[in-house]
This record gives sequence, C-alpha cells and structure tokens, in this order.
Amino acid sequence: MKKKLSILVSNDDGIDSTGILSLVYKLREIAEVTVVAPDRQQSAVGHSLTISSPLRITPFKRDGKMFGYSINGTPSDCVKIAISSILNVKPDIVIAGINHGQNTAINILYSGTVSAATEGMLSGIPSMAISLASHDLDADMTIAADYAKILALKLLDLKLPKDTFLNVNVPYKPKNDIKGIKIVHHSNTVWKDKYEKRNDPFGREYFWFSGEYKVNTDNEECDDVALNNDYVTVNPIHYNITNHSFISSLKNLEN
Amino acid sequence: MKKKLSILVSNDDGIDSTGILSLVYKLREIAEVTVVAPDRQQSAVGHSLTISSPLRITPFKRDGKMFGYSINGTPSDCVKIAISSILNVKPDIVIAGINHGQNTAINILYSGTVSAATEGMLSGIPSMAISLASHDLDADMTIAADYAKILALKLLDLKLPKDTFLNVNVPYKPKNDIKGIKIVHHSNTVWKDKYEKRNDPFGREYFWFSGEYKVNTDNEECDDVALNNDYVTVNPIHYNITNHSFISSLKNLEN
Repeated sequence: MKKKLSILVSNDDGIDSTGILSLVYKLREIAEVTVVAPDRQQSAVGHSLTISSPLRITPFKRDGKMFGYSINGTPSDCVKIAISSILNVKPDIVIAGINHGQNTAINILYSGTVSAATEGMLSGIPSMAISLASHDLDADMTIAADYAKILALKLLDLKLPKDTFLNVNVPYKPKNDIKGIKIVHHSNTVWKDKYEKRNDPFGREYFWFSGEYKVNTDNEECDDVALNNDYVTVNPIHYNITNHSFISSLKNLEN
Repeated sequence: MKKKLSILVSNDDGIDSTGILSLVYKLREIAEVTVVAPDRQQSAVGHSLTISSPLRITPFKRDGKMFGYSINGTPSDCVKIAISSILNVKPDIVIAGINHGQNTAINILYSGTVSAATEGMLSGIPSMAISLASHDLDADMTIAADYAKILALKLLDLKLPKDTFLNVNVPYKPKNDIKGIKIVHHSNTVWKDKYEKRNDPFGREYFWFSGEYKVNTDNEECDDVALNNDYVTVNPIHYNITNHSFISSLKNLEN
C-alpha cells in the first residue's frame, strides 16, 4: 500500500484563524496533516525565533476533536519544534497559510507565513507559503484552499532545488475570474513609511505604523502586478542573498 | 564649510548595551550621531515589525547626558520611525551594531541587527550592520568600533547599488592577529535544530531552543570561514530572493 502523504501545516495568523482551518480541512482530503501553529496572531514577525524564553506545546481542539498543537512562539519556532520535537518522522511537505493578506515584494521579508515555509525548506523539506489577497478576517478561503491542494499534490514532482521554496498568492476573486497560475518574481516595491502620532488618554504621545504600499512597476512578470491581474502567483524563493555581482567592486576595500 | 557627516545608529541588543555605546562614541569622532534603538534585548527578532500596538519614543540618557531615543519595538521599527518621525533630514548613513555575536550564513536572516541595516537600505541610505564574534557581554568592542569608523568613512564612496548594504563581522582577536578585511559571500550553513525538554517547578513540560551551529564548508570566500581565519568579513547583501534560474523549470505549472 502506498504511504499516505504527510504534511506539516503552520501559519502566522494563529491556530484559531479561518485561513489555517480551511487549509487543513482541504489538505486532509489528500494527506495526514499535522498542525503546529502559534497560539496567537503573529503577523509581521518576520523570521523571529524565540531563544530567550521557554516554549510550550499545547494540544488544541476544534469542535471537541484534536486539531493540532499550539505554541507560544513564532511561525519559525513552530516549524522548528514540530520537526525536531513533535513529529517522529520528517513530513513530506511543509505548507504555511492560508495567510490573511498577500505576501508580495518586500512583505515577503516581514511575513511570518513565509518564514514558516523557509524553515521547512531549511530542514530539507519541499515547502510552500500560501496567502490570500484579502485582509478580511471572514474572507472565503475556498478557492485559495483548492489551489493549496492542487499545488501540494505537485510539490514533490517539481524537484525544487534544496535552497528554494514556493511563495504562492491567490487573488480574492470568484473562481471564474481567476486566469490561472503564473510563475513570477518579486518586485522591489517597498513601504512608504509613516507613523501616525496620537495622544493617549493621559496626554502622552504614541506612534502607530500607517505606511503606504504602492506597487512601483507594471511588469506583468512581477508578483503584485500578476496578482492584481487575477493570476495565482508562484514565486520560487531562495536566500542566496549575497550580491555576487558587486563583490568585485568591493575588492579594493581589502587593501 | 563642509557639512558634517550624519549617522543613524541602531542595534538589536538594546540601547543600554556596550556594543552600541562603543560604536556611538567612536562614530562621534567623525559624525553627528543619532541613536534610535530598542529599549530592551531584541536578538533573533529577524525582520519583525510592530504593527498591532503603539510605539513610544523615549529620550535616553547616559551619565546624565542625552544619548539617544529608546523605542518599545524592534530594530526595524527603530530605523523606520527614526527616519520618518524623529529625524528632520535623512541621515547620510545607517549603521547597526555592534552586535554581540557574529551574524553569518543563516543567522543573517534571524538577526535584528542586520534587519536594521536592511531598513536603512530600503530607505535609500547607504547602510551597514556590524557584529563582533563574541557573545561575551563584557567583550572589548574597541577593535570592532575602529573598523566601524574605517568603513563608515568609506561607505559613501563605495557607491553601493540601491538594493545592497554591507554585513560586517569582526573576529574577537587582538588587533595584531587580525589579517585585514575580506570581501565574502555567506555560506549555506544552517542550525541543526534541537529543543531541550525540561520540567517547570509544577512538573509541566517546556522546551528551550538548544540548536547546534556547525560551519558546513571550508571555502575561504565564505563569511564563517574567513572570520574564523581572523579576517574582518564584508558581505554585500541584497534581497533579490527570487530564484530566477528556476523560473523556467516551473513554467509547466502554468498550464
């Protein structure tokens, strides 16, 4: 008998979010799914690790049934502790999501969801992050979950390089409006930083991030543009982050 | 009269660490220095942003004199809020450090110090992260501070590409043992994850990260190896993280 596919699922919106629920229910149609996710919202935590305090592993139920394990840590913590301390055998695949809100361009760097997939990849496991282009907490996750299943079934055949995982974004559109899958690279769009200055009830100043994100390109091969054009975008990410082409220009520093 | 160089300094060990103190005192010899740093230890926070809670900007004194501003946030928050809400004019340079402990290979991704330099670069400012290869909180920072000054003075002339900043690591060795500066790329060494299982005083299990880091290469052009060979390593980093060479292999997903 063929061994059932095993999938580790995590996210950054917390184990009780609707995004992870839709993902898990859909993936259970094709795999043995283990859920290890943060016990609370961890958006924009980037690649944080918890090293100065202890982590707890707590069984988490939904509708009276075991759903997974919640961790008092970050998405990266979850994937690390799942692979090293919860699972007896490495999973076949790691999938993080479904994130509420797209993870494109510079947001990839800030995203806890993407970091969870990164940790899967760093452990040598084919991995994928998946996000829906809607911040609405009640957004319908059905279509994104369908694409998660389609791509999960293909992930092992893709023969991803060992240092590469997939970052997937799904438009928040009716199924018939989605034009299909498009392979993209990220744009170099960044946030225009702004902080709103306010006063608390005691008259003391505080600041709240209120930056603006405006896509700086119309290149249809870029994640943001393709997503806005109703494509499901797939970006192969690796962290080969040395700017090799600039190394020779720096050589005179060595003298 | 030539305008004095202006430098924004941040870190991830907190505004009261000896690393940032040594850096600031040394840089004041050549520049107008503004310090905006986390109010507490923020190691391994990676590229975290604070978006769900308010930030406070608090003047911070040392020996009765104004030293800088402390922020109840992450290194990335500090650089963002400094440039957008504290400084009237963009600084000429952003320097993050001096970090207690090297930031090489995969640690670059987890490092708050490196993230602070990243934010400087994202704001279009020549930026640099600098770390000392010692976790000793009382480690002598003199030599690392000297290199920070040397490199700060050269940073504007390097004409770094807009998407690139420098990640610098300094060996913890006497001055005469240091062989000079070496331009490097990062290795692909990752942590071998392990969590120590313990019991709290109430008998409940908890887990503490206790991974192992073992350099997986002897390539002398790699950051870890060159650093262990007593070179000050300079790695030009960019976040062009799409694996472009794998895009064509994925094209059949589009059908």
